[in-house]
Amino acid sequence: MTEFRFARRSAILGKSVFDHAPGTIALNSGAAYPPCLPDVVREATEAVGPLREEAMQYAPLMGLDDLRDEICNFVAEDGIKANRENVLVTYGSKSAFDLALRTFCEPGDTVIVTRPTYMTAVHIMRTHNVRFLDIGQDEQGFDAEELARKLAIMENNAEQMPKLLFDVPDFHNPTGVTTSLARRKRMLELAQRYNFVICEDDPYRRIRFEGEVIPSIKSMDTTGHVISLGTVSKILAPGLRVGWAIGDAGVIRRMAMQKADGGSNAFAQRIVVQLMRSNKMAKHIDEMIHHMRIHRDEMIAAFAEHLPEAEIRAPQGGYFLWAKLPEESDAERLVELGIEEGVEISSGRLSFPNDDPGNFIRMAYSFIEVDDIKDGIAKLGVAWRKLQTQAQAA
Amino acid sequence: MTEFRFARRSAILGKSVFDHAPGTIALNSGAAYPPCLPDVVREATEAVGPLREEAMQYAPLMGLDDLRDEICNFVAEDGIKANRENVLVTYGSKSAFDLALRTFCEPGDTVIVTRPTYMTAVHIMRTHNVRFLDIGQDEQGFDAEELARKLAIMENNAEQMPKLLFDVPDFHNPTGVTTSLARRKRMLELAQRYNFVICEDDPYRRIRFEGEVIPSIKSMDTTGHVISLGTVSKILAPGLRVGWAIGDAGVIRRMAMQKADGGSNAFAQRIVVQLMRSNKMAKHIDEMIHHMRIHRDEMIAAFAEHLPEAEIRAPQGGYFLWAKLPEESDAERLVELGIEEGVEISSGRLSFPNDDPGNFIRMAYSFIEVDDIKDGIAKLGVAWRKLQTQAQAA
Repeated sequence: MTEFRFARRSAILGKSVFDHAPGTIALNSGAAYPPCLPDVVREATEAVGPLREEAMQYAPLMGLDDLRDEICNFVAEDGIKANRENVLVTYGSKSAFDLALRTFCEPGDTVIVTRPTYMTAVHIMRTHNVRFLDIGQDEQGFDAEELARKLAIMENNAEQMPKLLFDVPDFHNPTGVTTSLARRKRMLELAQRYNFVICEDDPYRRIRFEGEVIPSIKSMDTTGHVISLGTVSKILAPGLRVGWAIGDAGVIRRMAMQKADGGSNAFAQRIVVQLMRSNKMAKHIDEMIHHMRIHRDEMIAAFAEHLPEAEIRAPQGGYFLWAKLPEESDAERLVELGIEEGVEISSGRLSFPNDDPGNFIRMAYSFIEVDDIKDGIAKLGVAWRKLQTQAQAA
Repeated sequence: MTEFRFARRSAILGKSVFDHAPGTIALNSGAAYPPCLPDVVREATEAVGPLREEAMQYAPLMGLDDLRDEICNFVAEDGIKANRENVLVTYGSKSAFDLALRTFCEPGDTVIVTRPTYMTAVHIMRTHNVRFLDIGQDEQGFDAEELARKLAIMENNAEQMPKLLFDVPDFHNPTGVTTSLARRKRMLELAQRYNFVICEDDPYRRIRFEGEVIPSIKSMDTTGHVISLGTVSKILAPGLRVGWAIGDAGVIRRMAMQKADGGSNAFAQRIVVQLMRSNKMAKHIDEMIHHMRIHRDEMIAAFAEHLPEAEIRAPQGGYFLWAKLPEESDAERLVELGIEEGVEISSGRLSFPNDDPGNFIRMAYSFIEVDDIKDGIAKLGVAWRKLQTQAQAA
């Protein structure tokens, strides 16, 4: 048996967040709601028909000009001023984030994240061998004052200062929290003061059920310290694999040079151009909001019925519900018992980059039908009672 | 102006190989021949129509099972025995190579390459901050004995041994050379003896105009020391962005964990499944061979007429012609003068990871029409004579 000489980062092995236990109700998947997946037959036919030479050829490194223009129009609604040179098309916001890490971080560099943070971002950051400075989050979102205190201490101690901050300020994954305007301003001040770059990952921004829209951090950025990461995965379809990074033109160009694959998929990019130009995208977003609000409400109601011990905050948008179980509850074990009962959720452990409190779980309400949400949480309730019984017996 | 704190690898800036001078005849582009781009309207319509839930959703991390099976069938013709677990679907062989680098290499590790080697692979390797051990190439291909000597010395000196070898054994990019069977066997022996992994990049293998097929290195691998990198870019279309890595199941799984983007593009993957299952791919390959042979012959004839001083070896397949100019010729300057005349070629400098001899150029005959090949080399001849005049005047 060959003993391969892997890089350190290859120690990350084990379960992918894309693996699901077969035959279970998948409450662990932030995949799209199947009945809402867009019909793109017309757009695809055009892309590979009259536009075949574009669709079947290598795309420009930065992405299609038409798409970069449409993305500028799209984010203008968020108050973000961008020109084509500020936009890099990628395979989704995850790959855009990966390019930002490649552009800024050496192994051992520090990235600022919320505690907890997006599990797949943790995975990607681990492949870069970075360290995590994890910062708390409350009902106002990212605890910018905790960060300010910690940075001041680090600077005093002449420690190596963080280079990047990753956050999902709107309908945070996993907690669903939206960061307040005051906190966002403070985050930006700190980025400018300590010269780190904020990766503002905003896939759920348009999937708002209620409450006031809060300006994106990027819309307040005058110094290039914010890279806005976007994707069509939640506003159109994940399968299109089209996302983007918006930032300072020099930063964006450097990020482009880190792409291993050239100009990505012209074919899917053209489909997205057509969907953005037509009313299909706007209609699709309205539909998603309609369904996701119902899904959220059903899941919260099911928790009240089957697992009332869980502490839950209703998110104003997005795909996820985050639950705190009573102290000392073993969330990892609950996940296992859930699979035995036929429901799959995510342990909070995946979302804590450093220490896991051990009693948090994440549920997605995006992918499954309302009946399965009810049924899934009922099964989770059964698993929860089993966990209680086992804990008492131990 | 913000002074961003970039990672070291971000020093790689400047011209992308995907940028072309507008209005010139692009002899620097390994893009596909436009008249041969496949018609996939039927396949695309099926993928986004009846199979919409697959196409528009996140794909499985390893790629579609159906595609992994088809890839196994496809490479079986090359004598490669692979099961589904040995196959990872990627966005092309470049992204597969990037994943191999992520899986094996730390910054400062050494990668073995030919001198010269594929320019985009050099670019990707530079983003990993690796060092290059460059090995010569002659008409038999990779100089395995030079490598054997160098490795023996490095081992004696207790130096850090290379972890990876990158090569294009069939119709090498840029030189067009095909490595002999004896050399391939010796490369594999050395990989096993010194425990490094060979990334065998084989995009052009099926685009053979003449001569005997030589077994792939992967087909002789019994220890998992070879990762075969494949793509549909040359046998179907670059725009599909579908490629793969084939290797030891444990290595492949680790490579999958390095993906930042999850399961890539189900949509394009399904189109490729359908094309591989039908006779369309085989027909397309036959067409490509037909046209590329004509293109090669025309380009060689044009060199004989307009730039006979260039030393050229006719490749038996693939997309590229490599030319040695007389010693002391300034290839970089020739590239500039060529653009002034309206033709764009690549300087050999991009293909030499360490020292550039300075007098090599690379031409691609894949992308352009026969008339433009003739016209382009004629323009290059004009530029060449200007270069001679300037050199004499200096």
